[in-house]
Amino acid sequence: MSITMETLTALCKRRGFIYPSSQVYGGLQGLYDYGPMGVELKKNLANAWWTSMVYEHEAIYGLDASILTHAHTLNYSGHCDTFNDLMVDCKHCKTRHRVDHLVNPNQCPQCGSFALTEPRAFNLMMKTNLGPVSNEDSVAYLRPETAQAIFTQFKTIVDTFSPKLPFGIAQIGKAFRNEITPRNFIFRVREFEQMECEYFVHPSEDEHWHQYWINQRYNWWIDQGLDPDKLHKTPQPPEELAHYAKATTDLTYDFPHGQEELEGIANRTDYDLGAHSKNQDTLNLSARVKPNSHSTQKMAIKHDMKDLVPYVIEPSAGLDRGVLAVLTAAYHEEQQEQAKRVVLKLKPHLAPIKVAVIPLAKNKQPLVNMAKSIQQSLKRSFKKPIVLENSGNIGKNYRRHDEIGTPACITVDFDSLKDTTSDDKLIDTVTIRDRDSLSQHRVHIHDIQSFLNEHYAY
Amino acid sequence: MSITMETLTALCKRRGFIYPSSQVYGGLQGLYDYGPMGVELKKNLANAWWTSMVYEHEAIYGLDASILTHAHTLNYSGHCDTFNDLMVDCKHCKTRHRVDHLVNPNQCPQCGSFALTEPRAFNLMMKTNLGPVSNEDSVAYLRPETAQAIFTQFKTIVDTFSPKLPFGIAQIGKAFRNEITPRNFIFRVREFEQMECEYFVHPSEDEHWHQYWINQRYNWWIDQGLDPDKLHKTPQPPEELAHYAKATTDLTYDFPHGQEELEGIANRTDYDLGAHSKNQDTLNLSARVKPNSHSTQKMAIKHDMKDLVPYVIEPSAGLDRGVLAVLTAAYHEEQQEQAKRVVLKLKPHLAPIKVAVIPLAKNKQPLVNMAKSIQQSLKRSFKKPIVLENSGNIGKNYRRHDEIGTPACITVDFDSLKDTTSDDKLIDTVTIRDRDSLSQHRVHIHDIQSFLNEHYAY
Repeated sequence: MSITMETLTALCKRRGFIYPSSQVYGGLQGLYDYGPMGVELKKNLANAWWTSMVYEHEAIYGLDASILTHAHTLNYSGHCDTFNDLMVDCKHCKTRHRVDHLVNPNQCPQCGSFALTEPRAFNLMMKTNLGPVSNEDSVAYLRPETAQAIFTQFKTIVDTFSPKLPFGIAQIGKAFRNEITPRNFIFRVREFEQMECEYFVHPSEDEHWHQYWINQRYNWWIDQGLDPDKLHKTPQPPEELAHYAKATTDLTYDFPHGQEELEGIANRTDYDLGAHSKNQDTLNLSARVKPNSHSTQKMAIKHDMKDLVPYVIEPSAGLDRGVLAVLTAAYHEEQQEQAKRVVLKLKPHLAPIKVAVIPLAKNKQPLVNMAKSIQQSLKRSFKKPIVLENSGNIGKNYRRHDEIGTPACITVDFDSLKDTTSDDKLIDTVTIRDRDSLSQHRVHIHDIQSFLNEHYAY
Repeated sequence: MSITMETLTALCKRRGFIYPSSQVYGGLQGLYDYGPMGVELKKNLANAWWTSMVYEHEAIYGLDASILTHAHTLNYSGHCDTFNDLMVDCKHCKTRHRVDHLVNPNQCPQCGSFALTEPRAFNLMMKTNLGPVSNEDSVAYLRPETAQAIFTQFKTIVDTFSPKLPFGIAQIGKAFRNEITPRNFIFRVREFEQMECEYFVHPSEDEHWHQYWINQRYNWWIDQGLDPDKLHKTPQPPEELAHYAKATTDLTYDFPHGQEELEGIANRTDYDLGAHSKNQDTLNLSARVKPNSHSTQKMAIKHDMKDLVPYVIEPSAGLDRGVLAVLTAAYHEEQQEQAKRVVLKLKPHLAPIKVAVIPLAKNKQPLVNMAKSIQQSLKRSFKKPIVLENSGNIGKNYRRHDEIGTPACITVDFDSLKDTTSDDKLIDTVTIRDRDSLSQHRVHIHDIQSFLNEHYAY
């Protein structure tokens, strides 16, 4: 099943997943807001990552650092010098363009003029100022990746928890990049969320752990519902590696707009810890960056009685790209007798709404009361979104819940209330409709919870 | 039990709750990072809020909007004009100071000079630039409150979900204020997290719903473990109300540094929706702000066949202040025979670690294996942080877990493994130690999960 970005974007807007940001004022390019359905999907995906990393994996510590970052951090990490796109200005129409996006490298794509400046480096980091005076000394950056705070807090966490190698530090949070041409919906945006783990290993074991994480992360994405045929392990060619990386394998996915990076698993070596360490001369560093006279901490761990700077394996995933991949994989159109059915076959743990309870007629109070009481009881036990649909139009409700991926709809009908003795098997029963198979089960109200637990892993 | 801010800050650092940000480079004033324990506590408190608002309450929709905000949004909301502190510059030593912090209004607190400028308004919003050119047209703000995106997406959400009054939109996210003098640990900081709900009501019912939310929110904080004696409903005097408010009641708490605002529950009237609406003239608005020629949407809902701009009741809580309040309330020192016991009596659903499993001796493999298997099985069922402590020092482990608020410690001892028939009652049993009562229960390993479920509401 392949889907176009236009279809997906329209579904996301129509059903309350994702809206363009600030649209009442014409929008801001490359910024999106997650609506009522999107916020649940994104949160569920983030929680699945956090659970697998911090709760299920051995020896991974959580962190939630500030977005605003000290200029020194991004200076010594290399971002101030190297986190650039090459740009040209058109002297004629005054527009600015990325060199690697020019179709004709000598011609302005806006006005066709040949009066382009020499290419200049344009840094992608967003700046602001802290404190009462705006000048060079008060600059702070909006972090371009969550990773750096993991490195700068490395020693503090080691001192607090005394971990032994290998161990990791994991973080989910916003990062910002001033993309010149944001595009492809939530794929390339200016404000986005990362899920990054820095996994610290003995330098002699870096390649083993690199492979380990490539496989772990591949399998995790499959567990989120991605199609194995469309998820690829794509090693980066040496000439494309970032400044800190010895080797990187991307997990690429067949998005609606093409095969692109969903997650990168990089071997960052001792580059970052080395860069942020004091007394670099006393450490046996493999990769030297600009000498650092500002750091107050030695970024080493005691190993065999000696100071060791570990290597770092970094699985770094885009949460928004993850949402896009999961939606792409879940989207199905099915031809039915009368019409086309659009359904998101999301894994139940990712679905924004877990159950919809629907009284068959909206004005029949006993039906509505029974539906409400089922909803309340499921809310109490699951503590997840369980909605009551009281519009009375069962077909419309099914269509809506198919499109937002609700795994089960519970219908309360007149048979549920029937109090004749002729057909008492149906009294106090409801119909549970499965989103994917469209099968309908008649279930006693006391058995709803166990039925849901058995069929859906929320 | 009262605690000083110094004691609390030291505990937070020592036990991995909260660290100063960018400290390897000398720190950034007013910015903090949540460490492995703090990230769980903060996440648990945020989840409790989200569950109570979005999953348990009727008709409240979630949202997660971008931090970067269109300049028009904050212009028409009134923030560009009114979100200011009055400042003076010292002409002698070139420092800048908040007028309301001057002890002597005519004298520089830095150098003692009397050469102060006239007070000038200093806007607290942080700016950055989007796109390749930095100028006035490319300015975007880091939102000073999460509320504004709720107002600008109001019509989109109404169009998607067709809610009827009253209904709400809830959001948790970062906000930024360039506080001149951040202070009191995580109480007044430059980057912080808000939990805000905008609850839209018929204008004739605003006072009823205002009282409703004051009571709801008070009770919710009590459920998080705050002491009713220290949580106060404090109406703001009319002269202190924000520019948008008809009335505001703060929930103030006795923090270590004094009684201060934890949450504000404001009646924002139709101020914000009116400000962001097109065709304001056609609406019967109560409060007129600067006429808006830029908005593309009419911020009204159909009510009795007419366009109605609802009033807004806003419970707006600080998540970081919530963490501080919860820690303040949980902190206890108890005099024991030998020493002082420091314990965080956190509600179990807020505790960073739910259970610690501790083998009594670290080198006895059968003990360690049994402990590990208990940990794995609890991890699988709870999907929450369950740790294995394998240092062998039981007293040290108890002290650590008391200080981070772990509700239960499970000790695996030699009796757990005893295979003689003389005392077989103890075989396959463990000791569960309760953090608060210090009671110890001998429980069979098959009963651990039901024992924990019965005693602790995780």
